[in-house]
Amino acid sequence: MRITSETFTDGIREQLFTIGDIPGVLWTPAEGSGPRPLVLIGHGGGQHKKGWEVVSRAFPYVTSCGFAVAAIDAPGTGDRPEHPEIRRLVALIQEREAAGEPFWFGPEWPALNETVAAQLIPDWQTTLDALQKLDSVGDSQPVGYYGLSQAGEMGIRLVAAESRIKAAVLGLTGSDWLTDTAARITIPVEFLLQWDDEGNPRDSVMKLFDALGSAEKTLHANPGSHFRVPSFEIDSSIRFFARHLGSAGSSF
Amino acid sequence: MRITSETFTDGIREQLFTIGDIPGVLWTPAEGSGPRPLVLIGHGGGQHKKGWEVVSRAFPYVTSCGFAVAAIDAPGTGDRPEHPEIRRLVALIQEREAAGEPFWFGPEWPALNETVAAQLIPDWQTTLDALQKLDSVGDSQPVGYYGLSQAGEMGIRLVAAESRIKAAVLGLTGSDWLTDTAARITIPVEFLLQWDDEGNPRDSVMKLFDALGSAEKTLHANPGSHFRVPSFEIDSSIRFFARHLGSAGSSF
Repeated sequence: MRITSETFTDGIREQLFTIGDIPGVLWTPAEGSGPRPLVLIGHGGGQHKKGWEVVSRAFPYVTSCGFAVAAIDAPGTGDRPEHPEIRRLVALIQEREAAGEPFWFGPEWPALNETVAAQLIPDWQTTLDALQKLDSVGDSQPVGYYGLSQAGEMGIRLVAAESRIKAAVLGLTGSDWLTDTAARITIPVEFLLQWDDEGNPRDSVMKLFDALGSAEKTLHANPGSHFRVPSFEIDSSIRFFARHLGSAGSSF
Repeated sequence: MRITSETFTDGIREQLFTIGDIPGVLWTPAEGSGPRPLVLIGHGGGQHKKGWEVVSRAFPYVTSCGFAVAAIDAPGTGDRPEHPEIRRLVALIQEREAAGEPFWFGPEWPALNETVAAQLIPDWQTTLDALQKLDSVGDSQPVGYYGLSQAGEMGIRLVAAESRIKAAVLGLTGSDWLTDTAARITIPVEFLLQWDDEGNPRDSVMKLFDALGSAEKTLHANPGSHFRVPSFEIDSSIRFFARHLGSAGSSF
């Protein structure tokens, strides 16, 4: 793991890093040291590790809870090189949308998700290994995951595969091929649904929620389209992670 | 309005009152005076104004937010006299259940709700009139309503009729005769659904949520039967009311 930059803003330390070819970012409180709960935040399709939907969660998680928060670029995004197969599939999906068809019709959408997941899930696990070796994170504290939309799809796969993750905010996805994977998840989950999300019909999202094997799972549905998750859900996710990951303790 | 008793426990002042033949209870912070937001809490069927599901919300609303909280007995419950027609309808519904039929089959369930509402909605409005004349409540601050199950049904009717109520937590009801009433509601609503609630199938509850005319409405669905609303929803309702009713200000 190589730290490539370190900056301080508003009480938050931001460290850009690379682990092999994985570009990532770690946010921790500017003051304080020692182990602390870690939240991994996945970014949505076409976004990157410092997109607004990542930063708008990461900053309050650090300042309100004293958590460490990390994000990495998915294959073909942000500081990663172009990924020819992902570019090809995205282009086909965009053609489909331009022709007025839903993006998830046809074989490209599941193929895209498989292609991204094949690289991203191991990358997250490699990243988690490296972060837990840092003094500012450690391996004694629980880990959470936050991801909606494509990061919800990836999150279901990651959480089902990774026992170090103890609580997750997921949602805005209704992929029917995830049902069996969702059933293997047993940790507490807060699951988001946008009531008028044309790309993810509410029935399909609710089926995934229903499939989750977790004893504690809570569905939050709000009016509006895919990108209109209300800001009070950020506050809700803070409370959710604080409840399940605890606080950063006296070192915060 | 007649205050019939006043006691102090754990920083909370509890005043029992009667307004005509309406028995009620008002909780306010033991310290502090002056106007403050008020939350009205409805109780479920077969319960009363000091049932556990009322008190478990009322106390944190007072201690965390400095709100005033009030509850009244629905017709035929608590300190109210027996209500022959309600008793008759409840007995018929219980016979139906004993015979293995759902309670909401047949004409008794809608008739019971109509009978309760015909008295309870005006009683709530009379109560609100009286409470807003008290120095410890006043009429300058917003009012909220909390009610699930039968108190959700009554809440939809009350909120649609009462413009002083500015935010409401409702749910655990899916009565199809409430659709038009729900459509007249425009205030922010947090709506609760129990995923495995046999008496209120999720589709019927979601239809009512869908019908709400509110621009801000949020559905919280959790696994389990009717009475298994998780305790973290109490915390969520505190945040919801704090967001929409504000705090009690410097007098708290």
